[in-house]
Amino acid sequence: MSKRILVAQGGGPTAVINQTLAGVVLEARRVDAQVYGARHGVRGIVNEDLVDLTKETPTHLERVAATPAAALGSTRDKPDAEYCRRIFAVLAAHDIGHFLYIGGNDSADTVRIVAEQAAAAGYPLRAIHIPKTIDNDLVGNDHTPGFPSAARFVVQAYAGANLDNAALPGVYVGVVMGRHAGFLTAAAALARKFPDDGPHLVYLPERVFEPERFLADVQAVYERHGRCVVAASEGIHDAAGTPIVTRLAASVEQDAHGNVQLSGTGALADLLCEQIKTQLAIKRVRGDTFGYLQRSFLGCVSDVDRREAREVGEKAVQFALAATGAAQGSVAIRRVGDYAVDLVLQPLAAVAGKTRVMEDEFINAQGNGVTPAFHAYLRPLLGGGLPEVHRLRSNPVAKVLAAAPAA
Amino acid sequence: MSKRILVAQGGGPTAVINQTLAGVVLEARRVDAQVYGARHGVRGIVNEDLVDLTKETPTHLERVAATPAAALGSTRDKPDAEYCRRIFAVLAAHDIGHFLYIGGNDSADTVRIVAEQAAAAGYPLRAIHIPKTIDNDLVGNDHTPGFPSAARFVVQAYAGANLDNAALPGVYVGVVMGRHAGFLTAAAALARKFPDDGPHLVYLPERVFEPERFLADVQAVYERHGRCVVAASEGIHDAAGTPIVTRLAASVEQDAHGNVQLSGTGALADLLCEQIKTQLAIKRVRGDTFGYLQRSFLGCVSDVDRREAREVGEKAVQFALAATGAAQGSVAIRRVGDYAVDLVLQPLAAVAGKTRVMEDEFINAQGNGVTPAFHAYLRPLLGGGLPEVHRLRSNPVAKVLAAAPAA
Repeated sequence: MSKRILVAQGGGPTAVINQTLAGVVLEARRVDAQVYGARHGVRGIVNEDLVDLTKETPTHLERVAATPAAALGSTRDKPDAEYCRRIFAVLAAHDIGHFLYIGGNDSADTVRIVAEQAAAAGYPLRAIHIPKTIDNDLVGNDHTPGFPSAARFVVQAYAGANLDNAALPGVYVGVVMGRHAGFLTAAAALARKFPDDGPHLVYLPERVFEPERFLADVQAVYERHGRCVVAASEGIHDAAGTPIVTRLAASVEQDAHGNVQLSGTGALADLLCEQIKTQLAIKRVRGDTFGYLQRSFLGCVSDVDRREAREVGEKAVQFALAATGAAQGSVAIRRVGDYAVDLVLQPLAAVAGKTRVMEDEFINAQGNGVTPAFHAYLRPLLGGGLPEVHRLRSNPVAKVLAAAPAA
Repeated sequence: MSKRILVAQGGGPTAVINQTLAGVVLEARRVDAQVYGARHGVRGIVNEDLVDLTKETPTHLERVAATPAAALGSTRDKPDAEYCRRIFAVLAAHDIGHFLYIGGNDSADTVRIVAEQAAAAGYPLRAIHIPKTIDNDLVGNDHTPGFPSAARFVVQAYAGANLDNAALPGVYVGVVMGRHAGFLTAAAALARKFPDDGPHLVYLPERVFEPERFLADVQAVYERHGRCVVAASEGIHDAAGTPIVTRLAASVEQDAHGNVQLSGTGALADLLCEQIKTQLAIKRVRGDTFGYLQRSFLGCVSDVDRREAREVGEKAVQFALAATGAAQGSVAIRRVGDYAVDLVLQPLAAVAGKTRVMEDEFINAQGNGVTPAFHAYLRPLLGGGLPEVHRLRSNPVAKVLAAAPAA
């Protein structure tokens, strides 16, 4: 019997990460390879908390694939040498020769560490990272599984928020996930249909956030349209790189990878709204923080994302079991047509721990919006069947009375 | 020609309020009545800002019907005697004899005021209020159009949030809209499928919120499941009736109806999370405020809600144009089967400015959850095709190694 495959999931859940899991399991079984899963990422290996995914039925696997979040559980643990020794002991005990880890750049870094330590320890391991992140910040990928569905959520949220804001005018500020990369925030722009639709302003972590400039932008839009819809990334920061939100928070929380907590708090939206209320004297100002809804909301999936997430799992198994080829690497999505992709294996070092940010060509010159190139980039990823919005046509009734006296 | 019908929309937008608008217009046209719309509710009457809805095509009306928010625009204006005099001048100038107002209890109060002032002024007017509110707080209604779709959003959000929390365990606190009525928050309970699913705790404005009791509840769930998902209404308050959120906010904003602003700020979720972090020493605590997404998100609609919202508009026209019957009233939904409804006309005074809250039979004895009766009440309203969630089955691999040394 060939060596077993172990698959696990790391980092933040997405709408389609279980498609990838199903892709791994079904493709492995097609070639009679046995697949174990580790509960809660690498921590499940260390704890020898393994499940036999070979025993799942195809019917049930398809149901799990269509369920968001991470069916195996996740972790943000970062292995050190001792952690890796324990990993290899468990892998050896279960005759595992292939490690597939579905995750973002921190998870890719975990795979890099495990692969390096395995080589140093002389443990024969093929280690493959499979991309997943709503942040779309993996180097070498046209985009990452999970991002298109999260982007679709943001588009549907902003399309609705824009209509709500048009019905009851004022200023609306939505804060979208994205620590260093603004892709998900930028997706809000695709909610626009009519020329006066919001979001009217989009602020990204790729540009320095200047509070005075922000207020002037809001004022200008408000004067023009009588309302203003803003999309702001949770990661917007000042010229020194300090997140705007930390101007408020007394203490900040960090994970094992050194990331400051930005999500799970409404502080940034409240801060921006407060600025608008006090500095611009606009009365109706509302802020929403999209929070975990944008990555976990049940039933908002791009069909393109769903298929690609499935396929990166399948392809990872093919890379892992290939008779020749690299012993480790990271599956990457490359765009080869409009719209078509190829899947390649890139070196772990190319992606591990690195962060892709939005290309300059995607951000407008003012730094408060996106370009047509970004629309062209994102549109095919959103998938089919996106709900549309429509307005009443203009059929004004001619006035017969003099204007009402000022209230 | 019979007198024209004027229709307008008041209060917060919903996913299906434009279905009601389309119902009014199409039913009126079926009987050759002409329909005008006022832009931004009663304010549009005062401003003589009217549109001729008779000119809309059926095809386009159907598209608008399927679009969330309020296609005519909305307002929170509350008319006084002077405001009403202006209203009657405009109505008279345009030969309008029927006023249909789609909205919640504040909008019903507006219709009551307008009807009373019309009677006092001798202006012949049939004034009908058509129910709409995601809060589900209209007296005399089994439920209100807009609520089922918002409830569906909350269910889909919590089904996903629960999976996310299971993947990366900790405490998750979601804050749901509902000033005085907890129906929408309570809807979160229908996201549960497996016995250990969240939300594990549900806090409603119908019960006094005791911070110590809350912390003890969270602690108990956390000890039992290693995680905890909470649904809290934005309107939770202490024994004196003071909203918990105002313990934080230095100043509060009020609208013309005297309502304190609760939505559009993440303060309550942050406050509750801070309590859990500091008092219970739980590290991973995340809070989301669902905010405007729950009433405006594009593409989350209950088909039951969609049909009922359409029908209350149609029925309002029938009540308005009936040869006999009350000159004013409020359309109400009554449940007559499981599941079937009738539409009746109730007196404006029964609903105007009043607030229905959750019946005692819907709230558990501990005041931190809902009863099976609430599940039975809400289930049919959520509509068909609700996405399902599935878990991997339990197929543990037998351990071969001794337990890992404690990290």
